[in-house]
This record gives sequence, structure tokens and C-alpha cells, in this order.
Amino acid sequence: MPETKETQRERTSSDETPPDTPVLMKGGNYIREGKDSHKSTCIIFSCREEVGSLARALNVFETSKVNLLHIESRSSKRFPGEYEFIVECDTSTGNMGMALEEIRKACNYMQVISRNYKDNLDVTPWFPRKIRDLDKFADQILSYGSELDSDHPGFTDPIYRARRMKLADLAYNYKHGEPLPHIDYTVEEVETWGKVFRQVTKLYPTHACKEHNHIFPLLVNNCGYREDNIPQLQDISDFLKDCTGFTLRPVAGLLSSRDFLAGLAFRVFHSTQYIRHSSVPYYTPEPDVCHELLGHVPLFADADFAGFSQAIGLLSLGAPDDVIKKLATCYWFTVEYGLCRQDDGQIKAFGAGLLSSYGELEYCLSEKPELRPFDPEKTGVQSYPITEYQPVYYVAESFSDAKDRLMKYAETIPRAFGVRFNPYTNSVEILDSKLQLENLLKDIKTDLNLLQTSMVKISFEA
Amino acid sequence: MPETKETQRERTSSDETPPDTPVLMKGGNYIREGKDSHKSTCIIFSCREEVGSLARALNVFETSKVNLLHIESRSSKRFPGEYEFIVECDTSTGNMGMALEEIRKACNYMQVISRNYKDNLDVTPWFPRKIRDLDKFADQILSYGSELDSDHPGFTDPIYRARRMKLADLAYNYKHGEPLPHIDYTVEEVETWGKVFRQVTKLYPTHACKEHNHIFPLLVNNCGYREDNIPQLQDISDFLKDCTGFTLRPVAGLLSSRDFLAGLAFRVFHSTQYIRHSSVPYYTPEPDVCHELLGHVPLFADADFAGFSQAIGLLSLGAPDDVIKKLATCYWFTVEYGLCRQDDGQIKAFGAGLLSSYGELEYCLSEKPELRPFDPEKTGVQSYPITEYQPVYYVAESFSDAKDRLMKYAETIPRAFGVRFNPYTNSVEILDSKLQLENLLKDIKTDLNLLQTSMVKISFEA
Amino acid sequence: MPETKETQRERTSSDETPPDTPVLMKGGNYIREGKDSHKSTCIIFSCREEVGSLARALNVFETSKVNLLHIESRSSKRFPGEYEFIVECDTSTGNMGMALEEIRKACNYMQVISRNYKDNLDVTPWFPRKIRDLDKFADQILSYGSELDSDHPGFTDPIYRARRMKLADLAYNYKHGEPLPHIDYTVEEVETWGKVFRQVTKLYPTHACKEHNHIFPLLVNNCGYREDNIPQLQDISDFLKDCTGFTLRPVAGLLSSRDFLAGLAFRVFHSTQYIRHSSVPYYTPEPDVCHELLGHVPLFADADFAGFSQAIGLLSLGAPDDVIKKLATCYWFTVEYGLCRQDDGQIKAFGAGLLSSYGELEYCLSEKPELRPFDPEKTGVQSYPITEYQPVYYVAESFSDAKDRLMKYAETIPRAFGVRFNPYTNSVEILDSKLQLENLLKDIKTDLNLLQTSMVKISFEA
Amino acid sequence: MPETKETQRERTSSDETPPDTPVLMKGGNYIREGKDSHKSTCIIFSCREEVGSLARALNVFETSKVNLLHIESRSSKRFPGEYEFIVECDTSTGNMGMALEEIRKACNYMQVISRNYKDNLDVTPWFPRKIRDLDKFADQILSYGSELDSDHPGFTDPIYRARRMKLADLAYNYKHGEPLPHIDYTVEEVETWGKVFRQVTKLYPTHACKEHNHIFPLLVNNCGYREDNIPQLQDISDFLKDCTGFTLRPVAGLLSSRDFLAGLAFRVFHSTQYIRHSSVPYYTPEPDVCHELLGHVPLFADADFAGFSQAIGLLSLGAPDDVIKKLATCYWFTVEYGLCRQDDGQIKAFGAGLLSSYGELEYCLSEKPELRPFDPEKTGVQSYPITEYQPVYYVAESFSDAKDRLMKYAETIPRAFGVRFNPYTNSVEILDSKLQLENLLKDIKTDLNLLQTSMVKISFEA
Repeated sequence: MPETKETQRERTSSDETPPDTPVLMKGGNYIREGKDSHKSTCIIFSCREEVGSLARALNVFETSKVNLLHIESRSSKRFPGEYEFIVECDTSTGNMGMALEEIRKACNYMQVISRNYKDNLDVTPWFPRKIRDLDKFADQILSYGSELDSDHPGFTDPIYRARRMKLADLAYNYKHGEPLPHIDYTVEEVETWGKVFRQVTKLYPTHACKEHNHIFPLLVNNCGYREDNIPQLQDISDFLKDCTGFTLRPVAGLLSSRDFLAGLAFRVFHSTQYIRHSSVPYYTPEPDVCHELLGHVPLFADADFAGFSQAIGLLSLGAPDDVIKKLATCYWFTVEYGLCRQDDGQIKAFGAGLLSSYGELEYCLSEKPELRPFDPEKTGVQSYPITEYQPVYYVAESFSDAKDRLMKYAETIPRAFGVRFNPYTNSVEILDSKLQLENLLKDIKTDLNLLQTSMVKISFEA
Repeated sequence: MPETKETQRERTSSDETPPDTPVLMKGGNYIREGKDSHKSTCIIFSCREEVGSLARALNVFETSKVNLLHIESRSSKRFPGEYEFIVECDTSTGNMGMALEEIRKACNYMQVISRNYKDNLDVTPWFPRKIRDLDKFADQILSYGSELDSDHPGFTDPIYRARRMKLADLAYNYKHGEPLPHIDYTVEEVETWGKVFRQVTKLYPTHACKEHNHIFPLLVNNCGYREDNIPQLQDISDFLKDCTGFTLRPVAGLLSSRDFLAGLAFRVFHSTQYIRHSSVPYYTPEPDVCHELLGHVPLFADADFAGFSQAIGLLSLGAPDDVIKKLATCYWFTVEYGLCRQDDGQIKAFGAGLLSSYGELEYCLSEKPELRPFDPEKTGVQSYPITEYQPVYYVAESFSDAKDRLMKYAETIPRAFGVRFNPYTNSVEILDSKLQLENLLKDIKTDLNLLQTSMVKISFEA
Repeated sequence: MPETKETQRERTSSDETPPDTPVLMKGGNYIREGKDSHKSTCIIFSCREEVGSLARALNVFETSKVNLLHIESRSSKRFPGEYEFIVECDTSTGNMGMALEEIRKACNYMQVISRNYKDNLDVTPWFPRKIRDLDKFADQILSYGSELDSDHPGFTDPIYRARRMKLADLAYNYKHGEPLPHIDYTVEEVETWGKVFRQVTKLYPTHACKEHNHIFPLLVNNCGYREDNIPQLQDISDFLKDCTGFTLRPVAGLLSSRDFLAGLAFRVFHSTQYIRHSSVPYYTPEPDVCHELLGHVPLFADADFAGFSQAIGLLSLGAPDDVIKKLATCYWFTVEYGLCRQDDGQIKAFGAGLLSSYGELEYCLSEKPELRPFDPEKTGVQSYPITEYQPVYYVAESFSDAKDRLMKYAETIPRAFGVRFNPYTNSVEILDSKLQLENLLKDIKTDLNLLQTSMVKISFEA
Repeated sequence: MPETKETQRERTSSDETPPDTPVLMKGGNYIREGKDSHKSTCIIFSCREEVGSLARALNVFETSKVNLLHIESRSSKRFPGEYEFIVECDTSTGNMGMALEEIRKACNYMQVISRNYKDNLDVTPWFPRKIRDLDKFADQILSYGSELDSDHPGFTDPIYRARRMKLADLAYNYKHGEPLPHIDYTVEEVETWGKVFRQVTKLYPTHACKEHNHIFPLLVNNCGYREDNIPQLQDISDFLKDCTGFTLRPVAGLLSSRDFLAGLAFRVFHSTQYIRHSSVPYYTPEPDVCHELLGHVPLFADADFAGFSQAIGLLSLGAPDDVIKKLATCYWFTVEYGLCRQDDGQIKAFGAGLLSSYGELEYCLSEKPELRPFDPEKTGVQSYPITEYQPVYYVAESFSDAKDRLMKYAETIPRAFGVRFNPYTNSVEILDSKLQLENLLKDIKTDLNLLQTSMVKISFEA
């Protein structure tokens, strides 16, 4: 049976992995994180509305010889009638410390988010504030998609390696807003896809959760999910956008947990586009297009699952390293390897790592593994192997319940602000002022009004 | 004084205009509405999840010989575990009545939205459900942007007419998602812009509302608002998107009120891109880029104003003709010609028709016109001239208050469903089932949780 | 026609009346307000939880020689883990100013509410915080129920005056929690009641609002409303308590507007128990049991009306004199003389002064008076005669809408805190801290949960 | 050590006890439940507002020869403009089945709540709808307070037995609204109290939760909690009413779980008033005044605990027997024997059975017992001994968290309606119609408005 091969992949316990471990699976040689991380220091500050206040603030950077890479001005969300400035600095230049000290004195609000946060208590770990900021992940990958380990099935296949390189480059150069790369998959690639497709879909009726099975036919009808066709990311992304607002984005290699989870906050899923080596179609040591499209994609069309995934992402923004690690572990035991209870009490699989692997999908619902209720506090500190079938799975009551538990757990996260995603602007707002809460409350009232007026219009049975 | 020319534009009382009157000003020869309107019949229906239910439904269309232009399937938002089908039909073909009757019998939900609603009680007037549907407005314009009236200042200027034609064509062919056309404005065009810019900005400090004055410098800093530069729609649209989610979309001519307002529901503003004739820079018989950029754009960056504008749009979707007319009149007396009270009790202008016209801006705050409080019920039935300064203006207490009053008024609108905009999917949801209300309630709770956890994090003074 | 007599009652324009004018009608000689008002100074303060902090605070009063009339300690609602002290002082003793200064220095919260507020900006006008505090109104009446004016129909009738004295004394000595006085009405009194009853009920079907007509039969069935029986306050109060939580409380004479409205905040209506003089059954220069029971009582059983009445009361607590006057005027034009629009567009009467007077009830819906929409801002400053039929009536769209408008108006009231009524403890909470808002939010979430779980249980029609 | 005696009390496993087991401890001989239970059948029905509809409905009872014990009419909360009738029947008379069938046919709403529910699917188990209905528990006690078991320490003491009889009779005859019985405790009784008081209060600083320790001094200051004084129920009840709205009510013996929990829905705690036998002051086989006042009373002054206790009560109303049993078990492991985690992570006791027993209070925080997290689903089915120290305790994260978990659990309870307590009317509303949900939503909006307007008034620190 081919699945046995799958268990051969080398895995190490998560306990030994650093907080910037890739969320999914180990790739090749890690590249040093943050070689360009000095580019990602962002300062948000606001001054009273006085003539020349911005000029003075900008002067501080000049005096301190700090290069500004980008500057924008906006209406302040914190102080009525004031402006807010968002500045990106090159921290490799000038006297950053002096600049910050000056800004802090001159302004009534300052927030610094930077990849250089480890030795600085006043600095919030960097995170994307706008969906466009996800472009900055491109050069932050931990391993490049074409750098294969020596035991990778395609290591000695130069054609495969060239193909990988080509697709990785497409992703590396992708910018937000562009059409997703269209790939003309080869006959051989489609055959590999077909083998996996045929095999795993056999188990879906009995092993996949009802939400997955409900959506799968929609992907067949709307996105070309077929045994003889590898669906295009653009078609899928359009479909998901229409269902829940989720979109796909190609990724050139492995991202750190922090970056990968941050994408989810924007309802963006970083997806590979290449496929496993044709020699061992039922095995892959890393995520590939089969894993993404069969395992991940369907549930992103489910409103509750989308909300749960985004919630993990939002909780991760600006969180300390240990929290990131716990959230990534929760992600592992839900989005990757989660089980859930159905209305009739039966337990089914919803994790992508299960739904894209015939072997582990069959195993996970057998008598062998141990099942425990999903509880972020405990699940988040559970160690796990990444080279074998999981000995322990966590069972969610429902996606909605899992989200509730996650939010409950979130109350213990030490972060000095709330985070609100604004889907109109595709940006996250740092909630740390009364005015923002008042505006949030205003929006809640608008929704409550809609509920009220709509309820009147819908007839009920007694 | 050049402004006196402005009063020469021919205007007729709104009382005589049909419900599909353009929101702004009359252009040239009207083209027959709906020459292709048979393309815009959309049927949404859902069947119990049984094998073959969709096939049977589609068979109905075949039997009735109704051509299907588009078909998509989605998860039903109304019945758990069911599917929903959205079908666009060519109503010029086959026996539509028979098809609908069959669908109605076979399905547990059916909604028909169509431009052919006037003789059919069961049909809801057509409206765009997705932002992409706005592409369907392109061929529904009431007058084409290059068809000038004989008294138009550019009527006898062949170069001007060619320029108008070129820009109108760009807009006509524009599709959602494409970059907005970049226009290299001529020196003469920039000079015309500069004249208007210099003149109206003189009055802003004393006559414009504080929200307008607060945002104007941001447009200078971020979008190139300058006397010697006509800003590009793309830069403005990006800025607005970042502030409130509003975007601009080029329009080839005048839209009906129904279509124009529908755009606002998606936070989309249809903007002209051509400029008035250089011979009379302070006068224009129709909206042009000066009117849009100086008059309209700034306030779309204000959260409350954006919410108010969208609210008008949402109320208009699927509403009967008489309601559309009232909403368009409310739009006229707010977004186009509105005044508002400031915190200190002073009254200032916020309507685009005022902020882009030196003459009427000065006049509206003089002793001459009559001011009344904005009250949708009364404002919505007020007749008005379109060729002279307004004799009556309506004063809003605030944008937020204006929205509250509008929503209050909305309770009297006879529409069988609520309408919810989903900014994640850029689509509107027809609220007419219990399940949708439950999901709305779930989202409200999520927001309330965010409010609660964030409040704990923000310190208060006693 | 007997009603003509009714117009003879002397009335003066409300413009000349002081802010402590009785809400209803002028009685006899006013007694000086506040002869015992020094008893109603209440200080609420809290100290950090340290050994001896209360002792030190109390010592301040001793040192300042201020007599304490009452002291109680409670858990602080403002600071977690702290205590709060509520102290009533006799301000006629000692050096109050010094005491307050000391307390203010030693404590992290202090609130002073007192009837001696006119020359003191830091003092909030006194209001009852617990329902039991209404007992303090007994000696604050502006005129005693048995002191008749010389033109009162019963002025020369010693038996009538003795009867009035007896009932007024019962009310004067009434304490919260006691059974309401049971009156054995004389045959003559019942006959007077019967005459009024027969006459006004004739007009109800055509002139009274539907809410009044809906509840009236319930009072017949449950409380003994009959032509030949004057219902007992206790029976009515029990019925109202069961419907909306409103209760009646006997009153010995006229209260100031401030005190009367404060009762409504607790859903307590101060009711007279005596009846008009038998010689002129269709006329009374002051409220009597006919006015209360026929005019006021029915609508207090309506949930929306009860909410509206309580809202006026809550807004009045601790408000400045000019606000009290406006609220009392709003009360006059709604609870006493209000008209309202019915679902079918017709206008009907709901004010008690109308529903208890055949003459004005007929007049108010005739062509003679002017009708204006209820708008607290305008209605609250309308002058009115109290000796003639009203020349102007205000029309509410509904009780619910009237409450919404009132709450909107309330946002302009200059009060440094919110006021929340807690029906569990029958007390009002002064909202002026973050912790209280967090607890309010918690309660909102509890209700929202109930809404959510209940909605799931109720089936809807599509 | 005297505590060892306490372990001698006879206890049996909860697994063997029937669903109407007393919540606390076994007393003497059980009396047959429901000897008068036929008195507690209540029918709520509503008819369209037609002349004679009530008369026809009442005629049904006459025809069926069913005696009506009580009848009241109210405005329908379910159908606008209709009436609702609440009828209490003597089910020992006439043909009840026929009557119900007739009513069901004639009415558009019917709800039957009755103690005779076991063989009837359409009948909801009886519960009190108004606080006054708690008077009906008096004759539903499972054992009378003076009937002592042969091993009771006071079994052979005729004076003690007479005293017990006297206090039980006071409780038996108590009616809602009356002052609580004032007991002149004897010197011997006060001495017994003093011994317990001295002993348990020694452990409070180290073993009791912070909420208990926070409130205890308030009971000393406000209610006469002293070593040499047994506080009076009335003083305590007044204090609790003022803090959270909880009140005490004397009880003549043991109530069934169903009835006891129902009291909590009204924030009413049934309290004994007699004291244990003086011969063994540190032991009692049943609740007594020491257990109630030292163990239970303090936390009822805590808002979150009060909310949690009421939530258990509300969930129990009309629930099936198996749910009652689970809720009673949850009650046992929280209100009686609960532990909770403090902010600093320490675990402390909050259960009354612990706080009133020196021995078990010391034991519960020792290494001996097993601690598990409070989880209603699991806690509710945990068996427990009632004659020994608990081998297992459950730990709540906080009262608020415990309530959240309980509400979450509640979603699985099979009850066809929601239950809302109305503190204005002291009654519970059966939520089973759209109109009621609309009104609930209206109230939520009112609270949200209060939150909004109050938030504006409170200043925050940035």
C-alpha cells in the first residue's frame, strides 16, 4: 500500500522546534529569518492638529538620520479631528532610539511594530496591517520551494527541480491584486493529481465531516474539480471570495508560523501551486497542490470554519512568541489534523492533513489513536510528531464552538490592545482607544437594527 | 461673475421627471432603458439535497426553451445542508412564465429579480447582488458621455467631443477589478481644473463642514490634489478604499437613479473622468471631474458619511419605483446639496454640488434660501429645480444622525426582506429566513465579544 | 353640558411657573420646599481596601461635627475589591464643607447628591437611589391634599374637607412596602365615580387609543372597574406590577416636578385616592381618583408606555432645573395630554387629562386644536395654559417611537453620568466608571445569548 | 477534634436517589410528593379578540366539569391585540382531557404546565411563573423540619423538637410579601452559633475565596453577623435584596430538587431558620441556620454568583427529570461544594457546605481530594457520597465562567421554549413566539443605547 511510504517522512517532535517553525512541514535548508527585517519597522503616531506638527515629526527622522521608506497620513481613529501618520523606517540607518524618544515626547499616541522586537519591551512584533502588506512575506520564507532535501523523491530529477523553481519564482514575484498565476499542468502532473483525487474521494462519504462533503460538489460544479483536471488557484480563489471572502495567494516556500497565521487574519491562505513527484503519488514530505486543494480549500467555503481560521490569525497579530507557538499548535490540531463531532454524535475528519491522505484519514477514525476534546489551553501545549501519524487527535464540537473556546482562551493572551479586522478596507485596526470602542459599538447597533427590522419582515410559526 | 453663468443651465422640476431620472443632471438624448434588460433576469432557488434535484430544475428551463446565460451553485444560506442556484436567463427566449411556475412547485425557495418587474408582483426589481454585477450598468446609461446638448459649451468643439468620446469609451469598456483608466490630462484641462480648484478652496475654511476640511489636506498629501494636477481616479480610489472601503468606478454617462444608488450599496461611486469645457471653467451642465473630485471625494473618506451613503444605497435595492424616487431626492438634498450643523451650532455645507460651485456655496449660507431640518419623510417628497440655486436646503444634525433618521424611515419601506451587505464577499444578501438572522446574531455576538475584551484592555479615568 | 364647567378651572401659563411646579395642577397654598431638605444630603464615597479606611472617613464627620443620619457600606461597583459607603448627613450641623474636602482628599471616589445643590457646582441635585427613598417625598409636598382653594367646589363643605384630610393623612404616613390604604368609599363617592365612568367610557371606542381600549376590559375583569365600584389602589397596583412592574403609591398632595418624575424612574406612580366634590362631578381643579384610575392607570399596563414613562423619570434624576422643566413639559404633552397615531393612520388620545374628561377628549380630536409631531426638543419648550383646553397637542408616532426620540434628546442633557435602573434591587445606579460599563455589557451579552438560544427553538415560516 | 463527628452522618450515593431528591441532605420520613399536586395544573391559552371568546373558553371547563381554582386575564405577549388567560384547575375533578382538547381546538396558543406531567408528552412539568407561586411549595416538602431521624442528635430532646416544630410551622404558614419571622434565639442557641462562627471564620482568610472574604465584613457591619448574635433572616434578606436582588424565604423542611432550584430562578433562597442541636455544635445532618448564614448567604451578595445561581434555576424550569438531576448535581458541586481559582492561580473554597464546616474546608484544599475543572456535562453526571467528605471537587475558573459554561451546556437541554425572568414583575416568561423575541431585542437595544451614551460621558486614558 502506498500509504506506508507516507509514514517514512522524517518528523521531529514539535518540542524542539523554534517559534518560527513552519506551520506545515519541514522543507529544506532554513534560510536566516529577517535578513531584510529592518525594512519592516512601522511607526504609527498622531499629533495634535497644529500647523507644522507633521513637519516637526518628520524632522525628527532627518535629525536622527533614519531613512523613511514610506509615509502616509490618515485621519486619526483615536482622537477626533487629529491626524495619524504611518511611517516605515529602515532601521539599519541612523539613530532609531533617539528618533522614537523624540516622537514619543512630541505625540499623544505612538505605536511601534517591528520585526526587531525581541529585546525591546515597547515594541510590538511586526504584523501586516493591510492586505497589501502580505507582499512583504515574499522574502521572509524559511525555505525556498525549489530547494529539495536529499531524500525528497524529486531530488535527483532535474526536470522536476526546474519546474519547482519556475513555480516558486512565480509566487516569489506575485503582488497583491494581480491575477493568480495560471499553470498549464503537464499530463504527468494531472495523472499524479488524478491518482490522489480518486483515492481520497473514496473515503470522503464515510470519513470526512459533513461540511466538507457538502461543499465538495460545489467545487466540482464551479471550479473544475475533476480527476482529469488540476483546478486553477484563480478559479478557486474567486469561488471562495464569493462564499466567505477567503482568497488564495501563491507562496514560494515555507513561511514562519507568525507570518502564515497573520495571513489568515486577512482571510488569505498561502497556497503552494506545485505538485508532488510523480514517482510516489501518495506521499509528499511537504504541502503541495493536492494537499491544499483537496485538504484545505473546501472548508474555507464554510462560514463558521472561515471565522474560526480568521480568529486564529487575528489572535496571532502582535502576540509574543510563546503565544504564536500555542496558536500554531492549535492550528495544527484543527485546520491540519482536526476531528469534529457531527450532529448525530459521530466523529469525522476535517483537518487538511487527513483529508488529503488516504492512509491517515482511515487511521484517524480507527481505534488506534487517542481522541481528546479540543481545548485551546491544553491543545496549545501538546507536543506532536511530524513524521508519523498523530498519536493524539483533538475533537471539536463544531467550528463555531471551537471559535468560542479560542476566543475564551484569547482573554488570557497578554496583548495591550484588541485587534479588529475591517473587511471594507482589508486592514486590521489596533483597538486601544475609547473612540474606537465607541465606533465599534455604533457598528454593533447598526447590525442590531438590521436584525430588528429584518425580524419584523420574516414570519414565524408559533 | 462667472457663477452667474452656472444658473443658466436648464433645469426642470423634479416633479415631472420619471423614476429613472438620472440622479445628477440631464444630459443629451435619452436612450431607451433596458434594450438589453432581458439579460438581467436572475432567479435564485433552492431544492432539497437530493440526487438529481438540480438536474431536474435545469431541465425545466430546457423544456420551457429559456436560454440560461449563467448558472452558479452555492451553499444555501436559508436551509442548512441545502444548495442554492443562481441562474441568469434570457427572458426574450422561451416560456419564462411556465419555467417559473415549475421551479416554484419544485423548490422550497425562489426569488426572481428582474428589470422586467413592472407588471409582475412576484418579481423584485433587479439589483446587483455582487460588486461584479455593476459591470451590467455599462449598457444601461441614460445618455452617453459624448452626446452633448446643443447648448453645451463644447457642442461645437470637435476636439472636445472627440476627447469626451474617448473617455466615455474607456468607462464603457471598464470591467470590475481592472485598474482605473489613467488619463494624461492636457495642459488646457489642467488649467481649467486649476481655475476651479483655486476658486472653491478659498471658501472652504468658512463654508465647508469640518469633516471636509479635515480630509482635504490628506488628499493633498496622499493623492496629488494640487492646483496644477488633476488627481488620478486610481490614486483616489486606493486612498478611499484604505479609509472607508469606498472605491470609484468610471461611468460612461448618466445612470438611472436606481442603478446609481445601487452602486452606493457596494460603497462604489460612479465617477466621470472628463472635464468641463475650458471656455466656461466655472460652469458645467453635468457632473465632471472637478465636481466629483472636489465635491464628492473628500467625504467618502469619512466613516459616518460613508455609512450614510451606503445606507441610502442598501435601502434602494429591490425597492419599488416610488421609494427609489424618494431616496434619490434624499440623496439630492444631502450628498449633492446638503448642509449640516457643526458641534458649535454653526451651519456649513457638505453637499458636492455646493462644494464644487463657488457661487452656490456662498449663496447657500446666505440669508436667501430657506433651511429645514433633514427628515427623510418630508425631504423625500420635496420638489426641486435643477437649473437654479436651490430655494430650500435641508440641514442634517450629523451624518450619523442623518443615517439614523434614514433607517427609521426605512421601516416604512414595503420590501419583503432585509438586505445585508457582506464586505468580505462584496455582495448583498437578501435576508428572508431565520437561519440568516441567526447568523447575523452570531456575528453581532462576535463583535460584542471584541468590544468586551478590548474594553478590559483600555484604561479609563474615573 | 357639564364639560363647560371644566373649562372654568383657573390656569396660568406654564411660562410663569417655577421649576418645582407640580406636574399636574395647582392646588392650594404652596408650602416652602425643603423645610427638611437638609436631611436629604447623601454622600457616596469609596476608599482603598485598607484596615481602618472607613474608620478614618467616619472620623472626618465627627471632627467636622456633622451628624450622620444613616450609614451603610456596600461592595464598590466602581473599583474591584473595594467598599463604598453611603452616608446621609444632617447638613444643618457642623462644617459640611470641611468634611467634604477631607473626604475628597482621602477617597478615590466621591459623589454628593443633595437638595442644597443650587449654589454648588460639585453637588448633584438630590434624587432617590432606592425605591424606599420615595418615603422621603412625604414631607416634600407643595400643597397638602386637604388645603382647598376658596374656589374649590368643596371649600365650604366641612364633611368633604374632613374626608380629604383623612385620606391625605393616610398617604402622608404611608411607608414603602406597606399595603396600600383600603378606602371604603361612601355611596355618594361611588355615585360621583359612576357618573364620570359612564360618561367618559362612552367616548373610548372612538376617541381613545387602541392600547387603552385593549387594556380597559382587563381592568374590568381583574380590578373591579365598574360603574358602581371605585377600584382599590392595591388591586390595581398588584395588576400593574404583574403586567409591567408599575406600582401605585398614595400621595398626600402635590409633589414638585422633580420629585414626581423621579417616582416614574422606579415605575412608581404617585396617585391621589380622594375623589372630586359631588356637586360638580364632571369637573375637578386637581387630580383625583377618577383622573388617576380612568386616565392614567390603563396605559401603565402597556409595556411600551411603561418604558416611555420610566425613561422620562430616569432622565430627570440629578438633572439641572432647566432640564427638569423641559421633561415635565414633555410629560404634560404626552402622559397628560398626548395624542398618538394608530397603525391605520388615525389619531387618537392617550393622555390621562383627555381620557378622564369627556369635554376635552371630544375637543382634542376635533378640528379646533393644532396638532404637531412630538419632538422633545420643541415640545419641551412649548408653553401651555392649565386652565383651558390645550390649543396645541403633540402627536406621538407610537410610545416606542416617543421613547426613542426622548433618548435621542437625552444625549444633549448635561449630566456627568449615565443612570441605570436595576429592577432586581429597585435602585438606580450612577454609571460613571469603566467597571460598571463592563458589567452592563456582560448583562447585554446574557440577554443576547437568551435571544440566540430562544430563536433556535422557535420555528419560522420562510 | 469535633469535625470527625461530622463524617459520621449517613450518606448514600446520589446514583440511587430519585430525581426529586432533596438538594441538600436527607431528613426524616419522606412524605408523598404531590398529595395536593392536582392543584398545580395551570393552563395558559389565548384566543382571537372576539366578543365572547373567553366566555366560550370558560364554558369548556364547565361542560367538562373541571373546577377552576383561579383565573386571570392578561394582554397576550404572543399575539398583538389579543388576550391571554391563565387558569388553574383542580385536575381531580371533571374530564380534564376533554377540556384540553376543546381549548386546543378553539385557541391559537395553549400551554399546560402541571405536576402531573409524567405520562403526558404535551404537558410541561409544573413550575412557578410568579414569585407568589413559591407559596405553593409550602405543602410540597419532602420531609417536615421537625421530623427527626432516630440518629439525629436532638431526637430524644423534647424541648429541641418542640422548638423545631415551632420554627417549621412559622415557615409552613409563611406567605410571600410578609415580613420574615423574627426569632428570639435562646442563649443556648446563640452559644451554639458562636462556637461554629468562631471556628469557621478562623479558616476564612486562608481557605475562603476572595469574594466571600470581601463580603463578610459587610454582613458584620450591616446585618449583625457576630459571634454573640444570630442574625435575623429579614435583615439579611434586605441586605441581599439591595445588593443583587436575592431574598430569603423560610422553609419548613426539605424541598425536591425541582422546587428548590425553581426558587433560585426568582433569586429566592429557601433557608432554614432553626439551629443544630447544642450537644454536637460542629455537626449537623441537615442544613441549619449556621450552614445557611455562614455558608450560603455571603456569596448571594456577589453579582456574578447571584447570576450563576439564578441561571441554574432558570434552566431547571419545566425541564425533564433527567435534566433536573444533572442541574441539581451541578448545584451540589458548585453552590454546595465548589472550589474556584483566584486571579493569582490559587484555589479556594466557595461552596456553602465547605464554608460552614471547619473540617471539610481544611480537607478540601489539602492534597487528599481529586480536583477537576467544572464542566457541566461531566460534573452533572458525577456521583457523590452525601455522608462523607467529597472525594472529588470541581474547580470553577470564576463564577462568570461557570455561568458561561452552564449556558453553553443549556443549549443541549431539550426544552421547547426559552425562559426569561422579568425582574420588574418578578415572573418568568415562556419565550415561544416571535413577538417576544422582538421585545427582547428592543430591550437589548435600550441597554445598548445606555452603554453608548454612558461611554461618551466617561473619560478614558489613552
